[in-house]
Order: sequence, then C-alpha cells, then structure tokens
Amino acid sequence: MEDLIKYLKQSIPVSNEAEGFIASISTQINCVKGEVIMREGQTVDKIYFVVNGCLRSYCTNKNGKEHTLQFAIKNWWISDYAAIITGNSSPLTVECLKDSQLIEINVSDMEKLRMNYLEFESIQRKSTEAHLVSLQERILSQLQLSASERYDMFLKKYPNIEQFTRNYHIASYLGITQESLSRIRVEKADN
Amino acid sequence: MEDLIKYLKQSIPVSNEAEGFIASISTQINCVKGEVIMREGQTVDKIYFVVNGCLRSYCTNKNGKEHTLQFAIKNWWISDYAAIITGNSSPLTVECLKDSQLIEINVSDMEKLRMNYLEFESIQRKSTEAHLVSLQERILSQLQLSASERYDMFLKKYPNIEQFTRNYHIASYLGITQESLSRIRVEKADN
Repeated sequence: MEDLIKYLKQSIPVSNEAEGFIASISTQINCVKGEVIMREGQTVDKIYFVVNGCLRSYCTNKNGKEHTLQFAIKNWWISDYAAIITGNSSPLTVECLKDSQLIEINVSDMEKLRMNYLEFESIQRKSTEAHLVSLQERILSQLQLSASERYDMFLKKYPNIEQFTRNYHIASYLGITQESLSRIRVEKADN
Repeated sequence: MEDLIKYLKQSIPVSNEAEGFIASISTQINCVKGEVIMREGQTVDKIYFVVNGCLRSYCTNKNGKEHTLQFAIKNWWISDYAAIITGNSSPLTVECLKDSQLIEINVSDMEKLRMNYLEFESIQRKSTEAHLVSLQERILSQLQLSASERYDMFLKKYPNIEQFTRNYHIASYLGITQESLSRIRVEKADN
C-alpha cells in the first residue's frame, strides 16, 4: 500500500484521512507469470497499480494473432480506460509477464475517492490527459517513424523491460515481424 | 455561433448567461481550401469548431511524407490537444480541405468558461474521454484490422468525406499506399 501512497504523494499532498480511504478501497494481489487478470470480452470495473512486476495488455485479431497495446512496469497503472469510459466490453486481455504485486481498485471506489477528496479530481484529469498524450504519440510514431526509431522510443519508455518480454510481445507492440525486430537488434549491436 | 450553441445544447443545458460568455470568446472565421490554420512547430493556444467544411491535421516525416492524424467535418473540433496539454510545440499542421466556416476559441478562454460555468467542467471531461477512446480505437484498428476493414471504419466515421479529400489524404490516414487504397476500392466496387 505504501508504494501507491508514495507514488500519489509525488503529485499531490495526501491527507491521513484520504490515505485511510485509499487503504480501505485497495486490495493487494499477487499474480504469477502467465496469469490473466482481465480477459477480452468482459466489461471492466477494476484498475491495477503495479507495485512491482511486469504486465501487458493485448488484443487478438480474427486470425488469433496477438497485438500488444501497452506494457506496465513498477508505478504504472494498467486496465482498459476506453472500456471503462464507454461501458462496452473490452477487446483487451491483461496478462502478467512475470510474477507481480498489484493493487486492485474498483472503478466505482475511485469515483468515490474523487468525489470525497477533491484533490483527486485534478490528479485523475491529469492522468486522463497524460494517457491521451501517450496514445497520440503512439499513433504519430507509428505513422512517422521507422521501425528502428520506434524501437528506440520503446526502450526509452520501458527501460529494462526486455528481460521479461518475449520477442513477439515487443514486435507486436511495434507493429513489425519478429524477423524485423531481430534485424534491428543486430544493426544496433553492430553500431 | 448558433451552430456551436445548438451543438453544446445537445449535451447540457446552456444558460443565457453562459451563451453570452461563449459568444464573447468565440471568433467566427472563414478559411479557404488549402489554407493552413495551425502550423507544425508552434505551440497551440486555440481550438476550432467546424460549423461547416472539412479540415485535416497531419504530421510530416523526415522524408517530407505527410501522415494524416484526423479529419474534421461539421460539428467536430480540431486542434492538437496533446500539445495543449503538454505545452510543447505541435508536430501537427491543420489545413482546410474545402472552404470552411470555423469558430475559433482561445484555450485560456475555454478554461475561463470551465471555471465560471461548472456544467462545462463535465462536458470537457467527457470530451477528453471521448478523444481518448477514439485514439485507442485507432491504435487497435491499426494493429488488428486489415486495410480494407480500416477503410470501412473510415467511411463510417467520416461519411461523405471522400468528395473533399485526395487519395493520399485517406491512404496516409489508413497507413497504406495510394495503390493499396485503389485496389481496395476496386475490390469493394466489384462486390
């Protein structure tokens, strides 16, 4: 729990009362490598804060090919915010890539936090805005940058993540084949 | 001005006082086909509501190739929200694809609207959320769907837009070559 509070305190002062409320709505969970915590086709009513570990969200196309939307490491949040907003079922599955410690919070409890402690209103707005910026950057990088440049951005965004991920996780995040990813790595190693 | 008020009233009640304030911060502008209203490399302090017409935002890669991020038709907003949020200069240019009537509003005036008339707080949050959903859908469709399926989605999202756009606008939005777009159209016409 302390990790989440510490993380929040980086953005705003958190009163003892708010801290108590956060503790009352948080559930600490441990998940093991390969475990699925959210499955495609379901509505989404929970968000997850990563205390430590590594997860990814992905969708699957009609041929069964997986495409990684997002990775989440220490101090990141993961869920499907679009599905939470629309109330539609999610196209995303979230799985643990290594044993992870998470804090699970119900979306309705997050709403209560926002209503009861107004300082969390602004933190949530900033968080939605930051998410929007990150999605737009992703689209523009997909349109504008070469695969090699996108790989550089990936490494910067998710430092040290490669040890927990398989090649197809990263290739499917970058929108390239595993062969192209291998080629890019060889080129980088040569330079 | 009536068009914007009418559009807003679809979501929330707008008091006479708020209506007067909106009128005071809105500037009606006409722009002609080919005109650029926002240019790459500048910070962004305005948003535009499309009364009628058609515009697009695009970025340019280092080889000078343009990539369309968004089109905007009647009752859409266009700007670079990510650049507004971060305060960074925008990688986007916004140009008119046909003669258009727009309402221009300063971002700082929008803030005042939100502060003075609390009903606009929720409309802005919903608008940011809808934008987030649309960006995530775009990424997932790029990852998951075939070019032909993405073209179908495009036609649904932007009905009747093809008359104002050139092939390279649409191809660069879909992330395919103009030749692929032509092939998809021929296939659809044959079916």
